[in-house]
Amino acid sequence: MASNSALLARRERLLGKNMATFYQDPVHLVRGEGVFVWDADGKRYLDCYNNVPHVGHCHPRVVEAIARQAATLNTHTRYLHEGILDYVERLTATFDPSLDAAILTCTGSEANDVALRMAQAVTGRTGVIATNHTYHGNTTAVSQLSTRMPPVGGYGGHVRHVPAPDSYRPLGGQPGEPFATAFAAEVEKAIASLQAGPHGFSALIIDPFFANEGFPDLPAGFLDKTVAAVRKAGGLVICDEVQPGFGRTGTHMWGHQRAGIVADIVTLGKPMGNGHPIGGVVANIDTVNAFRKAFRYFNTFGGNPVSCAAAMAVLDVIEDEGLVENARRVGEYTRAAFHRLAEKHAIIGDVRGSGLFMGTEFVLDRNARTPAPEIATRIINAMRERGVLMGKIGVHECSTKIRPPMPFSRENADLMLSTFDDVLSGL
Amino acid sequence: MASNSALLARRERLLGKNMATFYQDPVHLVRGEGVFVWDADGKRYLDCYNNVPHVGHCHPRVVEAIARQAATLNTHTRYLHEGILDYVERLTATFDPSLDAAILTCTGSEANDVALRMAQAVTGRTGVIATNHTYHGNTTAVSQLSTRMPPVGGYGGHVRHVPAPDSYRPLGGQPGEPFATAFAAEVEKAIASLQAGPHGFSALIIDPFFANEGFPDLPAGFLDKTVAAVRKAGGLVICDEVQPGFGRTGTHMWGHQRAGIVADIVTLGKPMGNGHPIGGVVANIDTVNAFRKAFRYFNTFGGNPVSCAAAMAVLDVIEDEGLVENARRVGEYTRAAFHRLAEKHAIIGDVRGSGLFMGTEFVLDRNARTPAPEIATRIINAMRERGVLMGKIGVHECSTKIRPPMPFSRENADLMLSTFDDVLSGL
Repeated sequence: MASNSALLARRERLLGKNMATFYQDPVHLVRGEGVFVWDADGKRYLDCYNNVPHVGHCHPRVVEAIARQAATLNTHTRYLHEGILDYVERLTATFDPSLDAAILTCTGSEANDVALRMAQAVTGRTGVIATNHTYHGNTTAVSQLSTRMPPVGGYGGHVRHVPAPDSYRPLGGQPGEPFATAFAAEVEKAIASLQAGPHGFSALIIDPFFANEGFPDLPAGFLDKTVAAVRKAGGLVICDEVQPGFGRTGTHMWGHQRAGIVADIVTLGKPMGNGHPIGGVVANIDTVNAFRKAFRYFNTFGGNPVSCAAAMAVLDVIEDEGLVENARRVGEYTRAAFHRLAEKHAIIGDVRGSGLFMGTEFVLDRNARTPAPEIATRIINAMRERGVLMGKIGVHECSTKIRPPMPFSRENADLMLSTFDDVLSGL
Repeated sequence: MASNSALLARRERLLGKNMATFYQDPVHLVRGEGVFVWDADGKRYLDCYNNVPHVGHCHPRVVEAIARQAATLNTHTRYLHEGILDYVERLTATFDPSLDAAILTCTGSEANDVALRMAQAVTGRTGVIATNHTYHGNTTAVSQLSTRMPPVGGYGGHVRHVPAPDSYRPLGGQPGEPFATAFAAEVEKAIASLQAGPHGFSALIIDPFFANEGFPDLPAGFLDKTVAAVRKAGGLVICDEVQPGFGRTGTHMWGHQRAGIVADIVTLGKPMGNGHPIGGVVANIDTVNAFRKAFRYFNTFGGNPVSCAAAMAVLDVIEDEGLVENARRVGEYTRAAFHRLAEKHAIIGDVRGSGLFMGTEFVLDRNARTPAPEIATRIINAMRERGVLMGKIGVHECSTKIRPPMPFSRENADLMLSTFDDVLSGL
């Protein structure tokens, strides 16, 4: 068995430097099943992080669907095949009736790359608004939305950033209605700025759950004024459901439904095929047609029969195993326990989330709400050492990111919570 | 069983208009095995077109590799896994020693999107040269290389097009050395034009086999002067191996090796996982590191254990079944037969190709070499009616595109050739 240092050296030689791994001591995984993964030494880890294996690592029904279709036929959409039609029909039935058509891709990045062009095709304009702490993918066009690192050749000038909503430190200092109004005002300012330039205003793209922003607890109707401002300006609302989608938030199948809005374009990725590379863009048929008219688009692997079989199996399992309701119940249970732990550990400044997407924000001082990103890093690594995998996220990089496979049970939550209690006690 | 018209109506309703299908009467495929596919009525077709199922439709070793790994573990590169390392080591061993590292993606489009940014990272410049009849993929950035349809917001001004090489009607009217010199002169002109503008010159991107351009028969050393001009200007040569790669041309594993050049960056796609969505970018480790330094890049599904298992099985089968040598032998046999058919059918103006990538160009008049695109369309559709699937391609859209799965045998070729002879006789 190769040591981690030997593997890291091979990685650097074959895949390059600056290739991120999780944890100070990266995990060398060899097997997964349900909510557990095992490393090369046979050590078991509770997976509280990965949303890609949405219905559980190596779910037998998804594996069987992939194996069966791969042995039968795998080809592309220039031939007719019922797999993609049955899947898109089933998928779109989970949305508002206005979202009735789809284009399938291989990744969420490809989906967002298409979504931006869909909005261009409908509006004839190219300006886009995103938050200043978001991530929508890795293509050239989509990475223009990120503020992380200026690309070679510079930014295109067609993107405006608005401050990411932070419910723990709300814009304007007040939660509730003023917070929502302040966010909408920032979007209106960005719209005006784009309208004053050569690009015009095409779309607002958001994760309606604001996952990378640290999944703030937003008041009901938070996005109403923002969406009204976008529509008034003739723009489209693109909701990136790569993280909150497929029932993860426990209350709704889609994050924008939970936020109480109807999106114009919805993009899908990670959990869609339980790890099989598939993504998608859902929109009204007129929007899809406008895109298909303005841009010729064909994706060789997009919507292939194997991908559709995997994605269909995921929908089957979500339904048959009651995973949305499980996310709601186990999520509520876990957050209640986190609130109890917050009474014991002053480092926990906030407990947030919905369904099986949640976290605790760590602060050095509860009154000042001083972010504690270094302590968050120590905690995540200590959890990993004790066999529990979670991540770190948020505007201040001081929140845990807990987003396990959807069959995560109360028993699994108890294991995570007791380990967490131990780690915080040992700080 | 749904009729084709019912399926087409469902497609238009669920997937949108302007979604291309092959053939006037599209084929509704339900099963594939080796070089054959079957439609919903049980009719068998000889597949002379699809390079995605590179080692044959539903090859049992690839299916088994996918099923086994999908049942074991499927995760991403933020954990350590030997699958990606073993694969990249095996893959890069088939290239010139300078091409020693790789980034794995999910599609050829994503690979080219990365390749363009790799060249930007190395040169600090963004101008790109491509041919005027090429296709390198469907992302926003990569579709800027296409001349098919101006994007909303216009072209970026950083792309220059050179005339696609046409060996049947060579630039300057002469084949051989003058043809190569004329092509290099066009590239030099494009370099100068980019250097005079704000973008500068970053890279030439070509399919070294010029597949979409109609795979011209190019003299040995055709690209030498072009490559020298690119290097002299400090630019990089990106070779898109999505079509000629993995031994398809019969003489070499890679199209640029057949062309006698060493690429700076090589991109891979379609055949890599026999239909499983995987693509990749191969380059020198310094080039990869420059990209990883200038752009943060992470691809959730890229290089996942299942994709790597599929891709590794493809390399195993190519080797164990001697598929490159098979492509050479069967390709030569088939082209010799096409030359004999050309003596009988005056409509065949040219026979071209290498290995299992070939075609015949149809002309109305052999002396004037007048392209016959409508007749090409009729022939392709008549072949489809008789159970043989092939495509149409080329600068003048009047060549057949014959690019079957690699286990294509002499017996398969004979079936295709006799059907072709019948169809041409019945014109």
